[in-house]
Amino acid sequence: MNPTRDVVQLTMELVDVASVSGDERILADAVEICLQTCAWLEVSRLGNTVIARTNLGRASRVIVAGHLDTVPAAGNESATLIQAGQPLPHDGSLAEEDLVFGLGACDMKGGVAVALRAAVSLENPQFDVTYIFYECEEVDSARNGLTILAARHPELLAADVAVLLEPSNAQIEAGCQGTLRAHIRTKGVRSHSARSWLGDNAIHHLGEVLRRLNDYEPVRVVIDGLEYREGLNAVGISGGIAGNVLPDEAMVEVNYRYAPSTSAEQAATHMAEVFEGFEVVVVDNAGGALPGLTQDALAELVRLVDGQVAPKFGWTDVARFAAMGIPAVNLGPGDPGLAHSRGEFVTCAQLRKCEATMFTWLAG
Amino acid sequence: MNPTRDVVQLTMELVDVASVSGDERILADAVEICLQTCAWLEVSRLGNTVIARTNLGRASRVIVAGHLDTVPAAGNESATLIQAGQPLPHDGSLAEEDLVFGLGACDMKGGVAVALRAAVSLENPQFDVTYIFYECEEVDSARNGLTILAARHPELLAADVAVLLEPSNAQIEAGCQGTLRAHIRTKGVRSHSARSWLGDNAIHHLGEVLRRLNDYEPVRVVIDGLEYREGLNAVGISGGIAGNVLPDEAMVEVNYRYAPSTSAEQAATHMAEVFEGFEVVVVDNAGGALPGLTQDALAELVRLVDGQVAPKFGWTDVARFAAMGIPAVNLGPGDPGLAHSRGEFVTCAQLRKCEATMFTWLAG
Repeated sequence: MNPTRDVVQLTMELVDVASVSGDERILADAVEICLQTCAWLEVSRLGNTVIARTNLGRASRVIVAGHLDTVPAAGNESATLIQAGQPLPHDGSLAEEDLVFGLGACDMKGGVAVALRAAVSLENPQFDVTYIFYECEEVDSARNGLTILAARHPELLAADVAVLLEPSNAQIEAGCQGTLRAHIRTKGVRSHSARSWLGDNAIHHLGEVLRRLNDYEPVRVVIDGLEYREGLNAVGISGGIAGNVLPDEAMVEVNYRYAPSTSAEQAATHMAEVFEGFEVVVVDNAGGALPGLTQDALAELVRLVDGQVAPKFGWTDVARFAAMGIPAVNLGPGDPGLAHSRGEFVTCAQLRKCEATMFTWLAG
Repeated sequence: MNPTRDVVQLTMELVDVASVSGDERILADAVEICLQTCAWLEVSRLGNTVIARTNLGRASRVIVAGHLDTVPAAGNESATLIQAGQPLPHDGSLAEEDLVFGLGACDMKGGVAVALRAAVSLENPQFDVTYIFYECEEVDSARNGLTILAARHPELLAADVAVLLEPSNAQIEAGCQGTLRAHIRTKGVRSHSARSWLGDNAIHHLGEVLRRLNDYEPVRVVIDGLEYREGLNAVGISGGIAGNVLPDEAMVEVNYRYAPSTSAEQAATHMAEVFEGFEVVVVDNAGGALPGLTQDALAELVRLVDGQVAPKFGWTDVARFAAMGIPAVNLGPGDPGLAHSRGEFVTCAQLRKCEATMFTWLAG
């Protein structure tokens, strides 16, 4: 892997190293090797999270961060450079401009490429910079590399502001929504399916859970002029013992995405109300972050993107920095609507635009 | 294992040897060893199916058969002898009479105990007898020991009548219902759950499948004075990719139990109608068997149970014998309504009654 040449080529190289959550070791090794070549960086590692810091005695310090992991593959494991007018691999539609197609291209190896190139290129930035390349962002927050870093080495997270290179169309996306996952469980009575009238089918009871999900109308909330948009979805469903048995247990896993003005506690209460009558077990709950753009520290960055700021729908680690008192925004290449889709890609133009913005901001 | 002492004790010994479908080897070994001690039996084995035949030159030959496997355990792996008035382990209710509690006690290690005791006790039966102890009855019919035996050694299945010792309250249960399993699949569009409006949730589409299952009204069909009772149930449900992804595929596995007057083809057509608009893939379909009690060959057995005959709801290998032209009935200890339940048991009285009926019939 050679991060010194070109951001498009580096994005493709990063996509081609598989790094589904929990399996980031090989990619973390490759990133660490690149960073170790730079005399101006102090490199440390915790699990599959790699941290590289400048120590130039600057008046302020900024964090530039991105996660190394991706969701599971969907036939899109290999990076492909698609030129404008050529068909996309997953559905044959024609590319409107040059782009990199493949798992993680959008979420967020394009952003990792920009951060890695900044780290190895900018020997003399205007701020001290802490670059963080971390593991397990796409799974339980307990496994998240930043969670582990905050618990084990909080001193490495000290900073005045943070920029996360999560996909945001190379513009600033401010704040982020909260995310809660819960298991909605049904009970029944096990019996042989040949005499089903003697049992009570727990899977059939899931019908009411799915009815409520289908009837649910998510709200939209405007904060500081930015419209946040909630969502409530099943992300998993399971049940069954054998092909001739009525099961006595079944479960739907739901994911509730809630506006930053709703607290984690309020979100949990809301789920208990929506699924009243069922067992509701919250398995993961991370509150959002308010937009927080009023701080001076981010003013220069806002100017560099011509004041274009949008609300962030996905939960990102911006919330974690906000909770630590560090103003943070998302600014990364890629359309966030493509994240986790089979057709995930990032345009070459956004890679270059984001790189230019970040380099200009960091170089000063 | 000592089959010569007592049917209750033997049932407990059989329960204590785990034999979930696919893992019958240890139990088949034990059964084979018992049979090999009897000079009047010609023993053969195919996989984990054990066959023992007398060759006495009798005018007719009967098959006495039972399956060795059980459904998966549910905290009821060990056999327990419960005396009348004592509490049952799974729910504390009081036993009305002496019984053996445990996985497979009802379906059908009690029946296997009766057959095994007959095999090792009756040196000189009035018919030639083919005892069959077979594997994988509780799973796909392609894995069923009788399927494999019919394909590889059909000569071992030649007989005038057959008795299956499936649980039937130690009375004759005639005919059997058909059973069909199908996967009902939904499709959607994968997306990040933070922007769910960009996707289409395949799990949510299962709501309509479950609605149809909940609304379905199974019919009852009277044949030869016996009332058969159909059923349509989900026996499995699955879907989900990751905790923050709307899945593009989800599935319900259904099990349709249909009256013996309905053909396997008609059953498949009915499922396509019930789940019209969804992808329906039939994965297992075994037609039923009409009661077939008009044959003289079974008259003596019917007389021995005082003419008490009930319809069989569960699919049993009676259908397989019926399809081969061999009149067959179920006659075994245990309440079929307890089969596959956590509270599975067989009463000592039924074990002894069934043993008496079978010994009287076979001995002549």
